[in-house]
Amino acid sequence: MKATKFVKIDGKFKMHRGGYLESPIIAYETWGELKNNGENAILIFTGLSPSAHASSSSLDATSGWWEDMIGSGLPLDTDRFFIICVNSLGSCFGSTGPNSIDPLTEDRYKLSFPVLSLEDVAKGGYEVIKALGLKKLHTTIGCSMGGMTALSFCVQFPDISERLISISSSARALPFSIAIRSLQREMIKRDPRWNNGDYDPKDPPVMGPRLARKLGMITYRSAREWEIRFARERNTFEKDDNDQFYGDFAVESYLQNHAEKFTGQFDANCYLYLSRASDLFDFNENGGSLSSACAKLKLSSALVIGVESDFLFPIHQQKELADHISESVNKTKFVSLDCIKGHDSFLVEMDAFRPVISEFMENE
Amino acid sequence: MKATKFVKIDGKFKMHRGGYLESPIIAYETWGELKNNGENAILIFTGLSPSAHASSSSLDATSGWWEDMIGSGLPLDTDRFFIICVNSLGSCFGSTGPNSIDPLTEDRYKLSFPVLSLEDVAKGGYEVIKALGLKKLHTTIGCSMGGMTALSFCVQFPDISERLISISSSARALPFSIAIRSLQREMIKRDPRWNNGDYDPKDPPVMGPRLARKLGMITYRSAREWEIRFARERNTFEKDDNDQFYGDFAVESYLQNHAEKFTGQFDANCYLYLSRASDLFDFNENGGSLSSACAKLKLSSALVIGVESDFLFPIHQQKELADHISESVNKTKFVSLDCIKGHDSFLVEMDAFRPVISEFMENE
Repeated sequence: MKATKFVKIDGKFKMHRGGYLESPIIAYETWGELKNNGENAILIFTGLSPSAHASSSSLDATSGWWEDMIGSGLPLDTDRFFIICVNSLGSCFGSTGPNSIDPLTEDRYKLSFPVLSLEDVAKGGYEVIKALGLKKLHTTIGCSMGGMTALSFCVQFPDISERLISISSSARALPFSIAIRSLQREMIKRDPRWNNGDYDPKDPPVMGPRLARKLGMITYRSAREWEIRFARERNTFEKDDNDQFYGDFAVESYLQNHAEKFTGQFDANCYLYLSRASDLFDFNENGGSLSSACAKLKLSSALVIGVESDFLFPIHQQKELADHISESVNKTKFVSLDCIKGHDSFLVEMDAFRPVISEFMENE
Repeated sequence: MKATKFVKIDGKFKMHRGGYLESPIIAYETWGELKNNGENAILIFTGLSPSAHASSSSLDATSGWWEDMIGSGLPLDTDRFFIICVNSLGSCFGSTGPNSIDPLTEDRYKLSFPVLSLEDVAKGGYEVIKALGLKKLHTTIGCSMGGMTALSFCVQFPDISERLISISSSARALPFSIAIRSLQREMIKRDPRWNNGDYDPKDPPVMGPRLARKLGMITYRSAREWEIRFARERNTFEKDDNDQFYGDFAVESYLQNHAEKFTGQFDANCYLYLSRASDLFDFNENGGSLSSACAKLKLSSALVIGVESDFLFPIHQQKELADHISESVNKTKFVSLDCIKGHDSFLVEMDAFRPVISEFMENE
């Protein structure tokens, strides 16, 4: 967290679906140098769970979640661009969220945190660029949930960003994705240790979030990838003989390892708020249809990129978004990659994503 | 249950993966009349959760799970065929399962029930036809998990069935399906009221099985169906204002209704055993490959039918199975239906399934 910077928003921050936050904080990181009055600035909105630490830097040498995308000579070239990544409002990596202290009560918000909307997360990003003195952005980028946030940013603040890159995202969630996320939240809420959101963050619920993360992993990858990767390979570590219903197969230990890594890292209440915000977001509300919403975008160019094996943010939704953006943004490009790693491909199939992002950043 | 009949298997019933059951019982139902030495007999193996009550009859007028497939003038024509449906060994609708009393201890088996394999379920079906005095079967039919059971039946008892119909099934589970089922089982096991399998069946765990059923429903249908059916339709019943993370969307109440219907009906321990049996089954173990396994089938004809939107038993696996069966069974037909209701289509898209089953029953 040594590279993390903070913006404190003075006064009442009005939430999209009602309520206020008192002087919330937005955490962010930056890479590269501002040039030409900030015309080289890129703003990144993340998926549900990452922090603002998208890449390493001299201040923090640990690898970031998009390490192979951001850096000297990489598609988001730190020699050319000034790159900002914000930690979403409502998250737990420095930005104000349900686990933060409410200055008005001096107690944690917990479930008194107002309903979170991606519109609020977008506004949090705006507060960062305002604090940095930026009037313009070269490009706004959003991955997964962040793609919805980026759409909201570009329609709430239409005169700021010249370009938009939407990665493995959509204009609004379909019922399949809502069902998955609703079930994940229920797994967390049914954990007795969640205790209606009132738990010690140092001794948080583990079982519910672990189940939710396993379901997450199932939807972040693809059946095809696992067919190739695991097939019916047996577990390599010692199986617990007391549990005849679990642990014979490699795919089960893979899920367990991922779930263990995640829990303890991400706060349960933050997860509930951000997950629900993803369900509730509907870009079409900007005028009543996808066409009317896209007509409000003032961009010089846009890139919508996704992968065919993604079943959480399916590619047909991304094509639909690109088709509608192209009605008002002449230079709109839609790229469908045939990566097999599903929704997570933008994090792990860098050889497929890098050339597309590079080409857009160099030519558009 | 008035139409349910029972076969008691005298003595020790040896289980495929070790252990014995003492004089287990297999429940079944029949429709139609035996003719020509039983050459008109059809044996049906069910999916994981249905009972033997596949259709109504004069003994039990309630609708069965395949009501529109079995009856006078229907594809499984009770004027022509004698139809038997067995309740799987390990289930809870009359057949011996983990919730039954072990005659040796006079206590419920619970987790002392030996590891269940679909090979055992198939053998249970064999005991029924033996008790009925049948030497031959016109057709063996298996749906979903029952399709794997039917494969096992046809390879364990190769001289009995003339024909095979495999519906929305496969030769063995892929890691995606194993991951889903493993997570469902974990949801049940993490329910404190499951209590390591030691609960009063009249006061069973509810929360874990309900979560597992919701995940089941998500994988039994398809994203496309829900996109058309629910889109982002809001909940019609009153939302619980105390839960801001749940209940805004119609798809959420749909899942809740289905989960409530299911729990209380199906026993948690039975679910764990049958679910794991589905993971463990591997038809390729009959000789080491799908080719060698299929070469052991002695059938005059076979039909493998599935739907494109099924992601629990994906169609490419079903095509692969049909391709390999066709190496040893000349008259093998593969039918891929473009139903959008996913894995459950064989239960709900009867207008698509009936003509295919009819055609096979009339001509093969």
